[in-house]
Amino acid sequence: MLPDPIKKFIDLFSKLPGIGPRQATRLAFHISSAGKSNIEELAKIIYGLSDIKTCSLCFTSHNNAGYEIRNTRENTKKNLCPICSNPQRRKDIIAIIEKETDLISIERTKKFNGRYLVLGDLKKDGVLESVQKLRLNSLKNWIKKECAGQADEIVLAMNPTTYGDLNASLIANELKDSAKKITRLGRGIPTGGEIEFADEETLGAALDKRG
Amino acid sequence: MLPDPIKKFIDLFSKLPGIGPRQATRLAFHISSAGKSNIEELAKIIYGLSDIKTCSLCFTSHNNAGYEIRNTRENTKKNLCPICSNPQRRKDIIAIIEKETDLISIERTKKFNGRYLVLGDLKKDGVLESVQKLRLNSLKNWIKKECAGQADEIVLAMNPTTYGDLNASLIANELKDSAKKITRLGRGIPTGGEIEFADEETLGAALDKRG
Repeated sequence: MLPDPIKKFIDLFSKLPGIGPRQATRLAFHISSAGKSNIEELAKIIYGLSDIKTCSLCFTSHNNAGYEIRNTRENTKKNLCPICSNPQRRKDIIAIIEKETDLISIERTKKFNGRYLVLGDLKKDGVLESVQKLRLNSLKNWIKKECAGQADEIVLAMNPTTYGDLNASLIANELKDSAKKITRLGRGIPTGGEIEFADEETLGAALDKRG
Repeated sequence: MLPDPIKKFIDLFSKLPGIGPRQATRLAFHISSAGKSNIEELAKIIYGLSDIKTCSLCFTSHNNAGYEIRNTRENTKKNLCPICSNPQRRKDIIAIIEKETDLISIERTKKFNGRYLVLGDLKKDGVLESVQKLRLNSLKNWIKKECAGQADEIVLAMNPTTYGDLNASLIANELKDSAKKITRLGRGIPTGGEIEFADEETLGAALDKRG
């Protein structure tokens, strides 16, 4: 019943995060009626995402063409993101984050001058995926070489949720020998929030951190 | 801060229905890390949507290459969808629907042997858009020519919601001279539903339509 191109679109797009079959169907009809030039633009923009590289240090997506460093000894190319290739950023403070969007949020505050490690979505059962373990190991090795064995600080910038806490304590254990101190983001009442509506734990944290 | 291809993706995709900036950002990073061949496939499938034509009678999306009829007199090409080009379907019963997905739902029942007119999303204020008025007019003209002035039945297959009702009465008024009878879809308790949870209006409709 459905035209073939629509069917193919629905099949593929309904597998993307946050898009179900209904939403994919709606999008398919919407896009197909948008006109040839708009459709071509959408396709081109998707294709453009293949220019995105992954930073070989922090695993952030970037398209920083200027910092492709050829390591002749190991004969590998290092694609460094703008942050990892910026000599002004402190090497010995590393924030471990889940998602690139968290990195963007933290950067916007202009309060962090260290580097990052993007771990990817953490699972709710508090078990690290093998790719996440590899990333933590690569950080450990990097710290050994570049920070004389120990970083100054590792910030575990996971969400302050139950499973964020679970994963953070797991990662803290992994990295306990790699940093002088391991910290989490501060907890408290968000700006604009009301004490009346703060849950007990948040209010407790706000009292602990008062000052 | 965001890589340029990601930014472009977010700009464009956050304008699609049901996708906000957050969802677009998430998709951008997800797709960009999916690997070159997957990205190419997505782009190709979007591009494939440009093969979709709009039926010149009912305005359904289709890719029915076989029914492109050249009208030599008017020197226009008519792209007819599989339903409008099917001589087995009754010409004089027309269901007016909002979305193509509604057409698909109705077709699945195999209970309707007429044709359709796709109007596009109706606005909540009960004012028809100019493109919707044009479609209704093209239907009126078509009925005049092909159904000897009047169709047998026009089914206003709008949702049984407040604004669906509002639009339906508006459209009924537009088309009052074009059909012997103008109907709506039956209302009642949905199969599997419970009387206990049916609202008063639904239950009232179910009583009216009992039999």
